Amino acid sequence: MQRIVTLLTDFGTRDHYVAAVKGVLLNINPNLYLVDITHEIRPQDIREGAFVLASSFKYFPVGTIHLAVVDPGVGGKRQGLAAATEQHLFVGPDNGLFDWAFDLEPPRQVVALENPVYWLPQPSLVFHGRDIFAPAAGHLSTGLPLEKLGPPLHYKMRLPGRLILEKQKELQGEIIYIDRFGNLISNIEIPPLPGGRELRDLQAYLGTEQLLVGPRTYEEGPPLRPFALIGSSNLLEVSVRNGSAQEITGCSVGTSVLVRKQK
Amino acid sequence: MQRIVTLLTDFGTRDHYVAAVKGVLLNINPNLYLVDITHEIRPQDIREGAFVLASSFKYFPVGTIHLAVVDPGVGGKRQGLAAATEQHLFVGPDNGLFDWAFDLEPPRQVVALENPVYWLPQPSLVFHGRDIFAPAAGHLSTGLPLEKLGPPLHYKMRLPGRLILEKQKELQGEIIYIDRFGNLISNIEIPPLPGGRELRDLQAYLGTEQLLVGPRTYEEGPPLRPFALIGSSNLLEVSVRNGSAQEITGCSVGTSVLVRKQK
Amino acid sequence: MQRIVTLLTDFGTRDHYVAAVKGVLLNINPNLYLVDITHEIRPQDIREGAFVLASSFKYFPVGTIHLAVVDPGVGGKRQGLAAATEQHLFVGPDNGLFDWAFDLEPPRQVVALENPVYWLPQPSLVFHGRDIFAPAAGHLSTGLPLEKLGPPLHYKMRLPGRLILEKQKELQGEIIYIDRFGNLISNIEIPPLPGGRELRDLQAYLGTEQLLVGPRTYEEGPPLRPFALIGSSNLLEVSVRNGSAQEITGCSVGTSVLVRKQK
Repeated sequence: MQRIVTLLTDFGTRDHYVAAVKGVLLNINPNLYLVDITHEIRPQDIREGAFVLASSFKYFPVGTIHLAVVDPGVGGKRQGLAAATEQHLFVGPDNGLFDWAFDLEPPRQVVALENPVYWLPQPSLVFHGRDIFAPAAGHLSTGLPLEKLGPPLHYKMRLPGRLILEKQKELQGEIIYIDRFGNLISNIEIPPLPGGRELRDLQAYLGTEQLLVGPRTYEEGPPLRPFALIGSSNLLEVSVRNGSAQEITGCSVGTSVLVRKQK
Repeated sequence: MQRIVTLLTDFGTRDHYVAAVKGVLLNINPNLYLVDITHEIRPQDIREGAFVLASSFKYFPVGTIHLAVVDPGVGGKRQGLAAATEQHLFVGPDNGLFDWAFDLEPPRQVVALENPVYWLPQPSLVFHGRDIFAPAAGHLSTGLPLEKLGPPLHYKMRLPGRLILEKQKELQGEIIYIDRFGNLISNIEIPPLPGGRELRDLQAYLGTEQLLVGPRTYEEGPPLRPFALIGSSNLLEVSVRNGSAQEITGCSVGTSVLVRKQK
Repeated sequence: MQRIVTLLTDFGTRDHYVAAVKGVLLNINPNLYLVDITHEIRPQDIREGAFVLASSFKYFPVGTIHLAVVDPGVGGKRQGLAAATEQHLFVGPDNGLFDWAFDLEPPRQVVALENPVYWLPQPSLVFHGRDIFAPAAGHLSTGLPLEKLGPPLHYKMRLPGRLILEKQKELQGEIIYIDRFGNLISNIEIPPLPGGRELRDLQAYLGTEQLLVGPRTYEEGPPLRPFALIGSSNLLEVSVRNGSAQEITGCSVGTSVLVRKQK
């Protein structure tokens, strides 16, 4: 079975940066299999990277290594880390980027990437993705034990986590991500109930505006009117049929979202 | 030999959607080989997806599985399908997306993806790409027979097909695709003749404007003036040397194209 | 070990062109491993392609084949080539695209792609990437000797090379590339010294403006003020912390850069 390494960065895809990282990985382990999660995280937007990583890593096979680099503090004091959860491995900067993934699957072992034996020689101060993180992921893919990469690191969460609607009467969250289609995705998780779940028994507000609830698919939504929907990651999102909720509502990341049970 | 799955979607590459689909595929078959055709089909533009799929699938090896998702009706009444042609397999929504591929290579067997054994558990109503189509493609890649996925489905063409210039004196077609370079690509196919073929013996019109014919390569075209050319898929296209025919002509998808033999 | 083929083009990723090239490659050798360097070189910008290729190829394993297509003269008089350096193979048009890679690793053998046995049948005049270059790379990946592809070709450099700061008192170069983050990258290479190197002992000018020197990382830079930095390829670059040096300076490719030793 081929070993999988996923990549998530804010490098974009038009420069040489992603290719250099991939070359380093394949040089260490020519048999690994690379999958791009995305390279289009907005430059230095740790929160956006954290969301996309958390929304995708868990679909990959057990043992997948996730290399993520959104790293405004490169070359400064922030540390590099490698971590193992129950099913996955993670490599990247210790700046909050892994918070939402670790909220779903807590880390069992975390180390700081301080052992220069597993760096490229003379690492650039401005490109740890290529010179420190990629080699760490490459060596892990060949079976190197995590503790060889450096000493233990105490991982500290930085970002606000998901809010899960269970027994509360209401939950106050916020928009944390806006996707390509203009869907506004909140941090309020509405877990499925046995036999399916609908939003009909909830009131939902975006800022001060009450939202239509009821449509379960984009196609069921009315034209041009924003509605609340349980999205594909069980998070409450605001959508517009055949349109962009972002454009129509004018809302952005940080807008408050309130969910209240009717009964 | 590794089994190849191509992916064509309108998901874009900055969100987590494509990665989730790939994770599901690799979880079912960790040894398959994924190739992105594109994820930048304009949101919900079935016709654009149909063109890009038809223009690329046939270059892949026999047995390749093509997973295509441009799916404005997700969660509604449209069905999901899996199909086998003489050389390829296809999986995606039954909404016209496969029309132009099937125009080139007709389907021999088509089934509706109705067997929940091959879905992810509790499939999201808004992300069949991840929860129904990807599992179907993944299981096909491990050798699952098509008929296991569901009952036969009668495939019905929805889009107008290619027009092939053979013995007709003239053909009236239209622009069906505009590429990154601004080339206007029509649905009029001009098959190669033994010993090569040129457009010199044809008259070509874009809307009401007669087009220059003669240049066989972009470099042979005159500066700033649109000309007709036989493109790389044998379709008549309108190009401008070192420029964008789209910008210079102001034309868009749907503009009529007329070809008339001079003799 | 899987054989790696990298791809660098100006095709973009929304059309069918890249997928067609990949299909042809996998049809010839279904076991090869494809890595995209980028497909977002600005259309027909040979110099931009040359920079990105030169900045990434050397990280890949020995024996990697680099297929690069930025080809404004397709179908005209420029020749196609395949070349072997000490560690890598290259395939693409002979128009300068390989200059900066060959400046780093000189070609030992170069041939013109004139043997039609290794073309697709009836190659399109406007898509040599698919019909001539991809088959050449595919056959090389199966072990075909270079000389089978055609007769020797004398490679001629076309672009100005890197300027390496060694014993000179000053060097006059220019901005040759601007990356996604707006960093202005010059062709002045400042090789590392034993024990590290800093720019503090240099004066640097962008056009007529003297640049701040001193920060060694993006994070050490002052807010909003452009500074000179040794970038990740040892080239002098102009950056702005948390901002775009391109926007703040208004400079573009071709702006002169001067470096002068203070002592």
